[in-house]
Amino acid sequence: MKKIEHIGIAVKNLAEANQLYSTLLNTKPYKEEAVESEGVTTSFFEVGESKIELLAATREDSAIAKYIEKRGEGIHHIAFYVDNIEDEIERLQQEGFKLLNDQPKRGADQKKIAFLHPKSAQGVLVELCEDINK
Amino acid sequence: MKKIEHIGIAVKNLAEANQLYSTLLNTKPYKEEAVESEGVTTSFFEVGESKIELLAATREDSAIAKYIEKRGEGIHHIAFYVDNIEDEIERLQQEGFKLLNDQPKRGADQKKIAFLHPKSAQGVLVELCEDINK
Repeated sequence: MKKIEHIGIAVKNLAEANQLYSTLLNTKPYKEEAVESEGVTTSFFEVGESKIELLAATREDSAIAKYIEKRGEGIHHIAFYVDNIEDEIERLQQEGFKLLNDQPKRGADQKKIAFLHPKSAQGVLVELCEDINK
Repeated sequence: MKKIEHIGIAVKNLAEANQLYSTLLNTKPYKEEAVESEGVTTSFFEVGESKIELLAATREDSAIAKYIEKRGEGIHHIAFYVDNIEDEIERLQQEGFKLLNDQPKRGADQKKIAFLHPKSAQGVLVELCEDINK
């Protein structure tokens, strides 16, 4: 894992959360992006080499809506940047980790992404990501 | 906020978690440290400019033991590095954020630290930290 690419935070209301995190981090979000397939809208803040990604649900059946219903707002996942996501998926599978998707899929922010099963990582939802255009 | 200094992850068994995260992150913890005042033992892994901090309780009344009892293992807090923690506390208080300690206290890893109240940050426990020796 090269770096923490971002921390995903589940929020109910993106506009309110943008305001709060702009004040907290003392910087504005540098972009917003909807990911239709996941039923979310996202916004991104730069912090050093990493990002804070706020995620708000756009549908009741989205993973973020279900997460908030069960656990409330809060930190949803950690994403690590990897140089080669296919190699890293293979390495982790060989080590016994379970993946939610063992083929990379397209995520926000021009990334190929894959999620590990939280049971594989003691309750932590771990995302791997790699830039599509490098 | 200069960078994500670390992500704190609450775990039940530090030895088991060290093994799992060593495999996941493909790197060994570079140190372990007990923080008696908080009733925790910690271990640290480097990931880019940030760290993963695993936290296990050493007492039943420690904040980490209570957290795990209530929510299970998982991501406990995000720590941001700041250049001047006293100035940052003052800035955030003026913006209306509540702090769990408004005077910096001594944390693990040679840091002065302060926590924001999770209700101030939509369910996220945010830590500020600054190196004692710079």
